[in-house]
Amino acid sequence: MRLVASLALLLTLVAPAHLPAQGADDSRPASTNVRGAPYPRVHPDGRVTFQLSAPHARSVIMNPGGGDNGLGPALTMQRGEDGVWTGTTAPAVPGLHYYWFLVDSVRVNDPGSETFFGWGRQSSAVDVPDPNGDFYAARDVPHGEVRERWYRSETTGDWRQAYVYTPAAYDDDPDRRYPVLYLQHGAGEDGRGWVKQGRMNLIMDNLIAEGRAEPMIVVMETGYATAAASGQGGAAAPGGEQGPPPNAFPELVIEDLIPMIDSIYRTLPDRENRAMAGLSMGGGQTMQITLSNLDRFAWIGAFSGAFGQNPDPATAYGGVFADPDRMNRDVRLLYFSAGTEEPRFHEHAVAITAWLQDAGFENVVLFESPGTSHEWQTWRRSLRDFVPRLFRR
Amino acid sequence: MRLVASLALLLTLVAPAHLPAQGADDSRPASTNVRGAPYPRVHPDGRVTFQLSAPHARSVIMNPGGGDNGLGPALTMQRGEDGVWTGTTAPAVPGLHYYWFLVDSVRVNDPGSETFFGWGRQSSAVDVPDPNGDFYAARDVPHGEVRERWYRSETTGDWRQAYVYTPAAYDDDPDRRYPVLYLQHGAGEDGRGWVKQGRMNLIMDNLIAEGRAEPMIVVMETGYATAAASGQGGAAAPGGEQGPPPNAFPELVIEDLIPMIDSIYRTLPDRENRAMAGLSMGGGQTMQITLSNLDRFAWIGAFSGAFGQNPDPATAYGGVFADPDRMNRDVRLLYFSAGTEEPRFHEHAVAITAWLQDAGFENVVLFESPGTSHEWQTWRRSLRDFVPRLFRR
Repeated sequence: MRLVASLALLLTLVAPAHLPAQGADDSRPASTNVRGAPYPRVHPDGRVTFQLSAPHARSVIMNPGGGDNGLGPALTMQRGEDGVWTGTTAPAVPGLHYYWFLVDSVRVNDPGSETFFGWGRQSSAVDVPDPNGDFYAARDVPHGEVRERWYRSETTGDWRQAYVYTPAAYDDDPDRRYPVLYLQHGAGEDGRGWVKQGRMNLIMDNLIAEGRAEPMIVVMETGYATAAASGQGGAAAPGGEQGPPPNAFPELVIEDLIPMIDSIYRTLPDRENRAMAGLSMGGGQTMQITLSNLDRFAWIGAFSGAFGQNPDPATAYGGVFADPDRMNRDVRLLYFSAGTEEPRFHEHAVAITAWLQDAGFENVVLFESPGTSHEWQTWRRSLRDFVPRLFRR
Repeated sequence: MRLVASLALLLTLVAPAHLPAQGADDSRPASTNVRGAPYPRVHPDGRVTFQLSAPHARSVIMNPGGGDNGLGPALTMQRGEDGVWTGTTAPAVPGLHYYWFLVDSVRVNDPGSETFFGWGRQSSAVDVPDPNGDFYAARDVPHGEVRERWYRSETTGDWRQAYVYTPAAYDDDPDRRYPVLYLQHGAGEDGRGWVKQGRMNLIMDNLIAEGRAEPMIVVMETGYATAAASGQGGAAAPGGEQGPPPNAFPELVIEDLIPMIDSIYRTLPDRENRAMAGLSMGGGQTMQITLSNLDRFAWIGAFSGAFGQNPDPATAYGGVFADPDRMNRDVRLLYFSAGTEEPRFHEHAVAITAWLQDAGFENVVLFESPGTSHEWQTWRRSLRDFVPRLFRR
C-alpha cells in the first residue's frame, strides 16, 4: 500500500504562534485581535500601538473610523528598516473603535484584527479597556445564547437572518414566556453589530444575573430591506431616473419579523411586553416604527439618534407628540441617550428631552454617557442603563 | 429650544446603494459579497471578475488562498485609466474560494467581500454556484438554529464560544433528546467556519427535512487551546528555548466541552449517540480524540485529512488498528473523504480505506468529491454524504 508521508506536516496539530501576552512595556494585544496576533497593542494608559508590514509602500496611515472617533486623529505611521510601519496614538477613549490603514491611499484592514461590519464593509476595530467595563465582561454568571435564526421575509422575498438573544433559563422552563426587545444597529452596520461590537449578550447576562433586568428575549435584525415588488426595478426604470427604493425595513418588522418571533419563541406577544431601541440610524428607525405602531410597542429607546428628517417634535412622526395624554397613556418609556463627546447628538438628546418634559410628557428619560462619542461605548452604556427600566410595573 | 437640523441628514433612513443585480454580461454579484457590493461578479460559466480601486498602486494581483484553489492561478489585474484594477479568471470550480489582493505585495481584503476566518486571519472569499448546490441552499423547509454558547473552560482558564446547531423541532418537544455530532474546521480557521463557509446549518436543515438524516445537535468549537498551566509560560521560559505549548484541544473536548454540552442541551449522552468529524487538521484531531476515547465515540469522520504525524495505520493512534475485532465492535462508522483534485489527500484517503478494508475492518467508508480540491465544496459534499449514515441502527 502507499500512504503519503508528506501529509504528516500538513496535518500536524498546529498550535498557533505563541506570543507573549504582555510585552516589556506592559502593553497587551487588544482583546479584539485574532488569535495570536501581537498587534494592535493597548498600553495601560489607553495608548494604542499599530503595526503593518508594507515594505514597498510610500505612506501608511492609521485612519480612525469617523471624525469623532475616540482613537484621536489619523495617525501617520513610521517605516522601520524592515519595511514594517509602526505608530502609537495618544491615550484613547475607552471602547471599541473602528479603524483601517491607508496604504498609499488604499483602505486596508489590519490582518491582526478581527473584523466588524461597519462603514458598509468588514472593518478592523480595537477595543480599549474601560476601568468600569466589567458590565460587558464575560463573568461567572449564567449565560444566555445568541441564536442565528433563518427566516423567509414576504416583504423582501428572500431569506434573512435574525439574531435572537435568549436568556440563560430559557430552555429550563418550557412554559415560561418572555417580553421582547427589538434592538437595532446604526447606518453601515448590520444585525451582528450589537453582539459583536456591542457585547449585548454579556451586558444582558450580567444585568439579569444581578437581578437588575427582567429576563427577556432580544431580537436583532439588519435594518436594510428592499421590497420584493421594487426588486431589481430600480435600475431598469426608464431613463434611469428612479432612485433607490425606500427602505422596507419598517414594513418587514411589522409584517414579517414580529409574527415570526412570536410564532417561534415563547414571547409575551402584547404591547406591554414589547420594546424597541436602536442606535443612530436605528434610533430613528425605532421612533418611526414604534410611534406608528403604538398598538404594538410600549417601550421606546433612541441611542444617539432619533428624529430623522424632521427634527421638530411638534410635527415629527405624524404629529404624535401633539397629544401628551395619549402618549402618557400608551408609552411606558421614551428614552434618549447620547455621549457627551458627540455634541450634535448630545445637544439633540438634551433638547428633545427638555421639550417633551416641558410639553407635559411623562416617562421621558435622558441618559448621558460621560466622555464618549458616536461610538459603541456610548451604546453599551446606554443599553446597560435602558434595559433595567423595561417591563417593570 | 434648539434642535439640530443637520441631524436630519445623518439620521436619514438610508437605503443601500442600489446596483443592478444582473449586468449586461449576465454576471451577478457573488452571494458572498457584502450588501450592495457589485464586485466580485460571477459569470454563468463560473468565471469571476474582480475589481479594486487603487490609483497609486504599481501592481494588483488577485491571490487565491492556496495552491490548489479552484479559482486557478494568481491573477494579475489590469489598471484602468480611473485607477480601478480589474481581472477575470477562467471558469472556476464551484464552491467557496478564499482569496485576497496583493497591492504592491501588501495582502489586502476585498472591501466588496464578506470576511471568513481562514489562513489565520479574516479573509475574502467568493462562492461560485454549483449546479448541484441545492443541498446547501436556503429552502422552504423547517430551519434549525445556530446558537453561540459562551462557556468557561477549566482546561484553558478562559471563556470560549461553542457554536451549537439545534434542529428545527428542538424547542417544540421539551422531552426529546438528540444525538450529537462534534464537527471541526481546518488549520487557520475557527469554530465559525462550518456555518459561515460550510453552510452546515442549511445542509442539516435540508437533510433532516428530507428524512435523510436523524435530527441531531451539531457542536462546533475552535480547535486551538492553550492549557491554563502553560499559560504565558512559553515565552518566559529560561533561555527562551521552550516552544509553543502543545494544543490542549483534545483535553478541552473531553474534560470541558462534552460535559458542558451534555449538561445544557438535551443530548443522548452515550457513545452510540456521539459522533465526531473534521476537515483537514480537524480530521486529524477527530482521529486523535475519538480513537483515544472509544468509550465516548462510535462514529468517526475525517474529511481530507486523518493521520497526522504518523501516516502508518499499523502503528498510528497507539496501534488501535492492530485490533480489528475491537474496532468492529466499537466503531459504527469510520469515514474518509477527499476531493479528486487534491491528489495527496485523495490518494491518502483511497489508500487508508483499502488498507483498513484489507485488514478486516468493517464500517469503513470512502467518499470522493468529483472535481474539487482542498476546499469547502469538498467538505460541504462530505457532510451531506456523512450525516445520513450517523445514528442509524
